[in-house]
Amino acid sequence: MSRIDGRTPQQLRPVTIERGWSKHAEGSVLVSFGDTKVLCNASVTEGVPRWRKGSGEGWVTAEYAMLPRATNTRGDRESVKGRIGGRTHEISRLIGRSLRAVIDYKALGENTVVLDCDVLQADGGTRTAAITGAYVALADAVAWAQARKLIKANRKPLTGTVSAVSVGIVDGTPLLDLRYEEDVRADTDMNVVCTGDGRFVEVQGTAEAEPFARDELNTLLDLATAGCTELAELQRKALDATLER
Amino acid sequence: MSRIDGRTPQQLRPVTIERGWSKHAEGSVLVSFGDTKVLCNASVTEGVPRWRKGSGEGWVTAEYAMLPRATNTRGDRESVKGRIGGRTHEISRLIGRSLRAVIDYKALGENTVVLDCDVLQADGGTRTAAITGAYVALADAVAWAQARKLIKANRKPLTGTVSAVSVGIVDGTPLLDLRYEEDVRADTDMNVVCTGDGRFVEVQGTAEAEPFARDELNTLLDLATAGCTELAELQRKALDATLER
Amino acid sequence: MSRIDGRTPQQLRPVTIERGWSKHAEGSVLVSFGDTKVLCNASVTEGVPRWRKGSGEGWVTAEYAMLPRATNTRGDRESVKGRIGGRTHEISRLIGRSLRAVIDYKALGENTVVLDCDVLQADGGTRTAAITGAYVALADAVAWAQARKLIKANRKPLTGTVSAVSVGIVDGTPLLDLRYEEDVRADTDMNVVCTGDGRFVEVQGTAEAEPFARDELNTLLDLATAGCTELAELQRKALDATLER
Amino acid sequence: MSRIDGRTPQQLRPVTIERGWSKHAEGSVLVSFGDTKVLCNASVTEGVPRWRKGSGEGWVTAEYAMLPRATNTRGDRESVKGRIGGRTHEISRLIGRSLRAVIDYKALGENTVVLDCDVLQADGGTRTAAITGAYVALADAVAWAQARKLIKANRKPLTGTVSAVSVGIVDGTPLLDLRYEEDVRADTDMNVVCTGDGRFVEVQGTAEAEPFARDELNTLLDLATAGCTELAELQRKALDATLER
Amino acid sequence: MSRIDGRTPQQLRPVTIERGWSKHAEGSVLVSFGDTKVLCNASVTEGVPRWRKGSGEGWVTAEYAMLPRATNTRGDRESVKGRIGGRTHEISRLIGRSLRAVIDYKALGENTVVLDCDVLQADGGTRTAAITGAYVALADAVAWAQARKLIKANRKPLTGTVSAVSVGIVDGTPLLDLRYEEDVRADTDMNVVCTGDGRFVEVQGTAEAEPFARDELNTLLDLATAGCTELAELQRKALDATLER
Amino acid sequence: MSRIDGRTPQQLRPVTIERGWSKHAEGSVLVSFGDTKVLCNASVTEGVPRWRKGSGEGWVTAEYAMLPRATNTRGDRESVKGRIGGRTHEISRLIGRSLRAVIDYKALGENTVVLDCDVLQADGGTRTAAITGAYVALADAVAWAQARKLIKANRKPLTGTVSAVSVGIVDGTPLLDLRYEEDVRADTDMNVVCTGDGRFVEVQGTAEAEPFARDELNTLLDLATAGCTELAELQRKALDATLER
Repeated sequence: MSRIDGRTPQQLRPVTIERGWSKHAEGSVLVSFGDTKVLCNASVTEGVPRWRKGSGEGWVTAEYAMLPRATNTRGDRESVKGRIGGRTHEISRLIGRSLRAVIDYKALGENTVVLDCDVLQADGGTRTAAITGAYVALADAVAWAQARKLIKANRKPLTGTVSAVSVGIVDGTPLLDLRYEEDVRADTDMNVVCTGDGRFVEVQGTAEAEPFARDELNTLLDLATAGCTELAELQRKALDATLER
Repeated sequence: MSRIDGRTPQQLRPVTIERGWSKHAEGSVLVSFGDTKVLCNASVTEGVPRWRKGSGEGWVTAEYAMLPRATNTRGDRESVKGRIGGRTHEISRLIGRSLRAVIDYKALGENTVVLDCDVLQADGGTRTAAITGAYVALADAVAWAQARKLIKANRKPLTGTVSAVSVGIVDGTPLLDLRYEEDVRADTDMNVVCTGDGRFVEVQGTAEAEPFARDELNTLLDLATAGCTELAELQRKALDATLER
Repeated sequence: MSRIDGRTPQQLRPVTIERGWSKHAEGSVLVSFGDTKVLCNASVTEGVPRWRKGSGEGWVTAEYAMLPRATNTRGDRESVKGRIGGRTHEISRLIGRSLRAVIDYKALGENTVVLDCDVLQADGGTRTAAITGAYVALADAVAWAQARKLIKANRKPLTGTVSAVSVGIVDGTPLLDLRYEEDVRADTDMNVVCTGDGRFVEVQGTAEAEPFARDELNTLLDLATAGCTELAELQRKALDATLER
Repeated sequence: MSRIDGRTPQQLRPVTIERGWSKHAEGSVLVSFGDTKVLCNASVTEGVPRWRKGSGEGWVTAEYAMLPRATNTRGDRESVKGRIGGRTHEISRLIGRSLRAVIDYKALGENTVVLDCDVLQADGGTRTAAITGAYVALADAVAWAQARKLIKANRKPLTGTVSAVSVGIVDGTPLLDLRYEEDVRADTDMNVVCTGDGRFVEVQGTAEAEPFARDELNTLLDLATAGCTELAELQRKALDATLER
Repeated sequence: MSRIDGRTPQQLRPVTIERGWSKHAEGSVLVSFGDTKVLCNASVTEGVPRWRKGSGEGWVTAEYAMLPRATNTRGDRESVKGRIGGRTHEISRLIGRSLRAVIDYKALGENTVVLDCDVLQADGGTRTAAITGAYVALADAVAWAQARKLIKANRKPLTGTVSAVSVGIVDGTPLLDLRYEEDVRADTDMNVVCTGDGRFVEVQGTAEAEPFARDELNTLLDLATAGCTELAELQRKALDATLER
Repeated sequence: MSRIDGRTPQQLRPVTIERGWSKHAEGSVLVSFGDTKVLCNASVTEGVPRWRKGSGEGWVTAEYAMLPRATNTRGDRESVKGRIGGRTHEISRLIGRSLRAVIDYKALGENTVVLDCDVLQADGGTRTAAITGAYVALADAVAWAQARKLIKANRKPLTGTVSAVSVGIVDGTPLLDLRYEEDVRADTDMNVVCTGDGRFVEVQGTAEAEPFARDELNTLLDLATAGCTELAELQRKALDATLER
């Protein structure tokens, strides 16, 4: 089977990770997975939420949103509707958990990092692109905080790296990194978040139409693990470059 | 390792499935997994949401909520706060997707079933108890609709059965069906939704502290699959009894 | 006239008061007036709302709600609608006022008791069942707080008992404790809250169709007073039993 | 006992009923009970809410609100808070029910009258002033609708008149029409809504501090009935004048 | 061209400024520009919003609203809708900014004045009437605060006076102080806020249909400046009278 | 006086207008005024809001928003707060009115264009950049609709062009196109919206500290008019290029 854009089933879309996109944020990354573009801004503030005060530990959280016309047809703004939808909540929580999995709260000290992941253009895989880009923005924000002595120089708040990718079974074929047209046709759809050393942070598999068997699950996990390894390498390369502020 | 309540790692808590709990609902089940008690009411209405009208297909959806004092400390009511939290949204969506995985929309016809899953008492595993109980309430509601000719007699809206269980790794030991005290201490926490024939509808694994490796994932999936099989058997038994209306 | 369920006009429905229903709450009562079932949970917290701090006085408040399928047709959740309806507000306030009428704030000390009254199944008289059950939950919560020395042993925060019942005129006949079918047919509908010594805490009479005369009001008050006396006796008996925690 | 403003216990405050206050509303009354001033505007629209369409019957409803500085200290606007408080809900519902008690829906035809009762200045008894004034505005609105043939000439949508007054026991003395300073000191507080022929539409008595006995209730009802009779006479006089439009 | 009400193009409607309208507010003015009537209540509280604490400076803010039936057809209450509309926000902010332009925060000390401008009846120019009346209420509130020593006797919190008027081009003719019927027909509509010494605080001109040229803008500004001068004189006269409290 | 970035008082910041930024929107422009970057997406839908149906006329509206970290310190999301702020409302309305000033509704036919203006990075003048960019996106959307025959080929829905710029007086010097640092120090701040032929659509001048005199207003209008003329030329050039879809 040949994919819409000519990729092999095991192939990621072209991925770009542009650091320092916004001049205001302490970490700012425009990440693209093909036509999916997400702006990930990391904001550092001294102090932590009230329930954590005095613990000596920091906090990391995330908010995900889509611009109204990020998608093919315009969606109503959640600010105008006056409430946040379930999908938005769910993805914001997923991004936050994924990043916290590689954070040493003690080393972070009583500082908070908020990751804003705003989808400027959507073509499938917005949550996995967001996690992958947000990790890089977080790394820049941590470096910024260390340069300003908010975090002690000898501390390592990041215990690893984290990236994410979607996989799914379309017409019986397991595919990596689904575009929107593939996603809507998938029988099974899975988002996998891995650390750079190949372990899992999140595995979320959903049978869209037909329940899936154990061996299908295994094939998808193989595919996702390989994809995440590739993304981790791209993150490493992006972070190797010097960021001018 | 011996568990708080003396269970073996592979053992479910005592499960009860009480049908016909409320006199009003078309399907009404009080399900308990140990001290976790969830009232699952299925409401049948003729017609479907606007976006589905004229399709000849039905719809199944779910709403999950907790009573304020279902937990050890009182939580604020979401009706009083004026907004539904992310966790509530997430679980409501999970229950809905899980049940729709065994529904033949065509056979259901243009009818809607809403599953209200209200947690009366919580002790871990509320979402998995909710799915397991809601399936039975759904089955009763479908039978009610067929008795009243809302659904044609020769149609089979249910294409299978569905049940769910939580698994997790606590102090290095994989455990089935976690109580609250176990859940908060788990390194990895997974909710698995299976069909009666052993396939997966949802697999949601989260590293609470330490990322998990592929073989840990495999052990947890084995445990969950066995647990779901047991639950499917309990559902079958409960449904075998005659329900007086 | 014979009533739907064969009762005499002066007869209460079968009333049950089940203490210790939930394991978490400091006071937990499942009360039933016939098919009306209300779960009344009392939560004790040290401290009082900000406007009462430093007064040395406690506070008691209540929240009433209905499960969506407590009634014959499903109602939308107030949490989903994002706002609490007028009826819910009104009944929550009534329950709170009724309980506060028998509270000595000084004796309670700076502690707060919140009564959650959740209607699991409705068949008329949900607010009167809620008040009657909530009083018993409150008594258990006060005893719990005294056992834990939150309240001094020699203090008596409860200055009396309180119970409530509905009365109404249906087809010209004054009836006690209306079921739903009776309630919708009533010309006049009254809720009466009494103390154990036969005085009034609240009298709320409403002409649903035809205005009512003074002598009709008197007949209804006689009926209600007798009903409340009977309920006070049932509360006393329920509280005489030993509650295992 | 002499009252703050020199009234006898059985005496109303000076009452004024000014018709045609606003040029826009179909019925517009500025009512004052002493320093309590409420603007009651009746708006007539053809048609009824969806649930009543095709019934041939009309609808009457009311909304009550207070200007932020109607009271001694400024209250936050409910529009700014984004939610309506329980007290507002409760009073709006009371006014609506009271007026509907004297409406013949069939005679009204499929027309809706909304009564907006906005408290411009508060000094106790705002709900009873609102009901008393709203009745007059409603009568003007009905007359307007009949003049414009929205209601047939030979129909009588108003089946009687309705007025309301507060009563209470202050320092052991039963008093009619309480001012704010009296209201806050009252042990028992009752709002009574009567028809012009002396029957009851609503009786709402609340023990603010001490429960009240049956004979106290009787004394208060006597006081309230006499007060309502006087108010009905004032309404009649106000309506006897010709209203220029 | 002759105007609907016989005014010349340069003529204001009859303006009345009634001080001391409400007994509760520290400054209370009922202002009318023809049939437009706005109740402006100024509330003084000691202290300032959190972001200003310790600055030694005060704060002045405003909230504008319309009664539902202030207009020809009834509008829904913003409290019922649960959100404030853009127009309300915009006008509230305009009134606040206009008054702050003549406030010396240091002289005011750490006190807050809130101006509530509630439109009781609308016939065009509600925001300009509100500003003109609110200034007078603010002056009375400042005097009240000085009499009570909240503000030091030798301080002058008011650095000038402020008034406002609308102007517009209707059928090619520039008109002062538009009534509603004129406003809806205007091609260009401008609201101008001036200080008593003839300078501008706000100039807000909007092309409703046709863009406007520089010379039209100049003509409108001339008209508005003259109107504001007249209003400043009326404010001065109103404040010259002694206010009994 | 030399400006922070070396500009003369009469000089615009570097302006870029990038068409076709998003692949989904019918018109998509990324506009920058120096470091202010606004993404303007125009969405075309057939049909109009209910109140306009059957009129044969179209509708154009706009929504403005800021990403949380578009500014120097992170702002809370309005979707999370559950309500839109006054500033957002005000600017959305301004953009909508400005664009409607150059629209012939009849020629547009019963089509709706929504302009979403999302500020990705803010450095002063976000509303004026948004109007300037949104006009270009609107022009592209109209061309798209004509190519698809939603609008008849011989119709001209755009009756002119529209652009906007801010001006202000900083330390006594009138400046064009203020950066954020200039804006916060300005005594007077004005936003001016002009058509391509030099007439005014909106003039909004605000005295931030000191009221401004007529001659200052005139100087600012001269400056703004020249700035808008330059922007109109840049819009024309941008639109002259061929847009590949």
